[in-house]
Amino acid sequence: MDQMNLTMLTDFYEITMANGYLEHGLKDRIAYFDMFFRKVPDNGGFVIMAGVEQLIEYLKNLRFSEEDIDYLRGKKLFSEDFLRYLKNFKFSCDVWAVPEGTPIFPNEPIVIVRGPVIEAQFVETMVLLTINHQSLIATKANRIVRAAQGRGVMEFGSRRAQGYHGAIYGARAAYIGGCIGTACTIAERDFEIPVLGTMAHSWIQMFPNELEAFRAYARTYPDQCTFLVDTYNVLKSGVPNAIRIFHEEVVPRGFRPKGIRIDSGDITYLSKEARRMLDEAGFPDCKIVASNSLDEYIIRDILIQGAQVDSFGVGERLITSKSEPVFSGVYKLTAVEEDGMIIPKIKLSENVGKITNPAFKQVWRLFDKSTHKAIADVITIYDETIDEKNPYVIFDPEYIWKRKTVTNFYAKRLLTKIFDQGNCVYQSPELKEIKSYCKGQIETLWDEVLRFENPHNYYVDLSKPLWEMKQRLLQEYSVK
Amino acid sequence: MDQMNLTMLTDFYEITMANGYLEHGLKDRIAYFDMFFRKVPDNGGFVIMAGVEQLIEYLKNLRFSEEDIDYLRGKKLFSEDFLRYLKNFKFSCDVWAVPEGTPIFPNEPIVIVRGPVIEAQFVETMVLLTINHQSLIATKANRIVRAAQGRGVMEFGSRRAQGYHGAIYGARAAYIGGCIGTACTIAERDFEIPVLGTMAHSWIQMFPNELEAFRAYARTYPDQCTFLVDTYNVLKSGVPNAIRIFHEEVVPRGFRPKGIRIDSGDITYLSKEARRMLDEAGFPDCKIVASNSLDEYIIRDILIQGAQVDSFGVGERLITSKSEPVFSGVYKLTAVEEDGMIIPKIKLSENVGKITNPAFKQVWRLFDKSTHKAIADVITIYDETIDEKNPYVIFDPEYIWKRKTVTNFYAKRLLTKIFDQGNCVYQSPELKEIKSYCKGQIETLWDEVLRFENPHNYYVDLSKPLWEMKQRLLQEYSVK
Repeated sequence: MDQMNLTMLTDFYEITMANGYLEHGLKDRIAYFDMFFRKVPDNGGFVIMAGVEQLIEYLKNLRFSEEDIDYLRGKKLFSEDFLRYLKNFKFSCDVWAVPEGTPIFPNEPIVIVRGPVIEAQFVETMVLLTINHQSLIATKANRIVRAAQGRGVMEFGSRRAQGYHGAIYGARAAYIGGCIGTACTIAERDFEIPVLGTMAHSWIQMFPNELEAFRAYARTYPDQCTFLVDTYNVLKSGVPNAIRIFHEEVVPRGFRPKGIRIDSGDITYLSKEARRMLDEAGFPDCKIVASNSLDEYIIRDILIQGAQVDSFGVGERLITSKSEPVFSGVYKLTAVEEDGMIIPKIKLSENVGKITNPAFKQVWRLFDKSTHKAIADVITIYDETIDEKNPYVIFDPEYIWKRKTVTNFYAKRLLTKIFDQGNCVYQSPELKEIKSYCKGQIETLWDEVLRFENPHNYYVDLSKPLWEMKQRLLQEYSVK
Repeated sequence: MDQMNLTMLTDFYEITMANGYLEHGLKDRIAYFDMFFRKVPDNGGFVIMAGVEQLIEYLKNLRFSEEDIDYLRGKKLFSEDFLRYLKNFKFSCDVWAVPEGTPIFPNEPIVIVRGPVIEAQFVETMVLLTINHQSLIATKANRIVRAAQGRGVMEFGSRRAQGYHGAIYGARAAYIGGCIGTACTIAERDFEIPVLGTMAHSWIQMFPNELEAFRAYARTYPDQCTFLVDTYNVLKSGVPNAIRIFHEEVVPRGFRPKGIRIDSGDITYLSKEARRMLDEAGFPDCKIVASNSLDEYIIRDILIQGAQVDSFGVGERLITSKSEPVFSGVYKLTAVEEDGMIIPKIKLSENVGKITNPAFKQVWRLFDKSTHKAIADVITIYDETIDEKNPYVIFDPEYIWKRKTVTNFYAKRLLTKIFDQGNCVYQSPELKEIKSYCKGQIETLWDEVLRFENPHNYYVDLSKPLWEMKQRLLQEYSVK
């Protein structure tokens, strides 16, 4: 896709603070920021990380144009020193991120930015915007895909997306989350996501009648016939006409019908009847596609009722994550460097859940050596190691008497370095690889974590050194 | 903003149908499509039209690049004739739209596209995506602005938007809907929306303590001091430190404090206490800004409880329209031309609410001559006129015995031509003008329509000729 200059897509306070840091001699003070989230959307058990590739693109292209600087000068708020600094700006931070497609959990750092505070602070808005959006949609898509129990789910939501990137990167995230394709053409051109689509109701209406509309379509695309059968009446008109055209135009040309699509009415009833009619007509291989305001809950319900649907086209409820359209990742200062020492920082809050985890950190996932299932995640101070050879004790950071000794495990670091002193040191995998990695990683989760409602809380614990550091800071900063 | 080539941001079926229309000799068949919607988000009384300026940009830039055509050729679905057609593609449709900022109601055409069916069909995805998104956000913003009862509402949601355009055009739409500004810097650079913002919690944490952080800020921006007071403890630390710095650094420099911002905790309680403390300290003019997961319901409630808030920063619940993140505009064929005659078309549905209004139409708004309040909208066949000199009878299209004779009124056409044979013939007003036009238009609505819950259904009726045409088509097309 065409490059956009998104440098100025930032909350204005990032710029007022930057100018202030420069003025107060804090330009080169090294700071550490974590992106993390507190709650899984839809009360689910996990989130799927997505958006890292676009975050990398943004960071690579971060520069202030003459136009940007002229605009800022016009605000009469900023020093010429600062505007000169922006003109010569070169991103020089270290950045770590959890790879796309990885299941992630509340309170874990999923992106860490370390560098001069002006820079590390400045990127806040875009780090959050990029990862929040794609992770939200990948997570929702995966819920819907799991509800479909192996049937294909296609992303059909462009027209109801929240803006152009909502459609395009939404399609990308949905593919990571498990969708088999999209209707969004540009997403295939730019990301090689398989694109699908046949006809709208207007195609039917442009011909003298439904039969002639199907016939015309079959003559142009005899091997691609998925007919939309609900323009007039699914069972009295659409399906019989489809069957007739399959016989008259498709089979004689040496092809098999691909499918019919039902976009309104009671999908359970109509699909069962349509299935029977297609089978009786000799087309048991003709697939039934359902669309129309679907989501994971409706798909689950109609499958329980025995709907004969082979694949689903899911639009607005996927592309906006309608039932919970916000993923609330936040970006918080966790440490600064003074004389080469890392000084941890904490943010208190009257709301206990909003207290941050201090320090420069790493996230480890412990896997069972026999089952390869994920047992728990442990957040550690960055230079801690977890020795796989010895039993490792994990404990709940809130109810510390809840503890468990893990044995026979291996541990993997989740955060990978993607920028080193401003240079990208990470090559994003092909999208297909991300998708298949995602599928594999979800298979490491216990079914209890995958449940739609009231899932088991996967363990995300703090290491003993990190927990103790946090307690010390809580004592130190709390207002008496 | 940089131009993006969004031509391929289209549902793939638009392209398969286009190729089919060409093959079947329907390329030059003139078709009419309406965009309309069926339901107001949040069960509100009206929607605010927005996005027309971006729709115009898209239509002006509609062309297929070599890259697009190569990509499509690679699909092995399309004829070389068709690819040649795309290479030479020039948009040639007529387009009408309701101007931005106008209150609109269910079932009214808000965009009409007339032209060769390939073209008029092709633009479906982008017409819907553009208008759906911005209208959704303008409408939500207006609900929040009305809840604030004259207090300023600032759009603070970029980091939680659904993609980059979600943030940028979301800020634009929020401004149309009545927000006084945004935190999204690029929205000021490109749309001249006033941008606002002071400091994040991390600013406070970068200094030895809160007092020094406020002091540093005050020295850099003595006339811009809105301090974030909830990093440690609002009443024990934030407000006292703010007051001290107002006295020590702001007043001595000849300025007055601008405000404090509370971003967590109980806004009602904290704002009342903070107000009292500021007043006692001699700063009754210091404003209190509240943020933290606000929306129209919370704002209404805390104001009822007497919260002392002067302005609101509203983020995720505005920028995603969280409580209802989808605006379901649709795009339906309503007529074709044959031998110069306009032949109306209808789409039936087992769901009565999904039956379309046929024909090439106009929407009229009838205003009371004395009060200038909007009485009703009437959808007519395009060349009908409404004679203001005579009483006009409106009737409910479903319950036709519900009728009303309107007298002493004037009637305005809502749909304005924006493209004539592919040429833009409309100049979008300045954004500020759109915003003020919007405010004025909402003032023409009765309070009953403005109610948040269970508002009065504003009358949207069909003219007698249109109603009769629809009945005739229903008879004709219904499957016996």
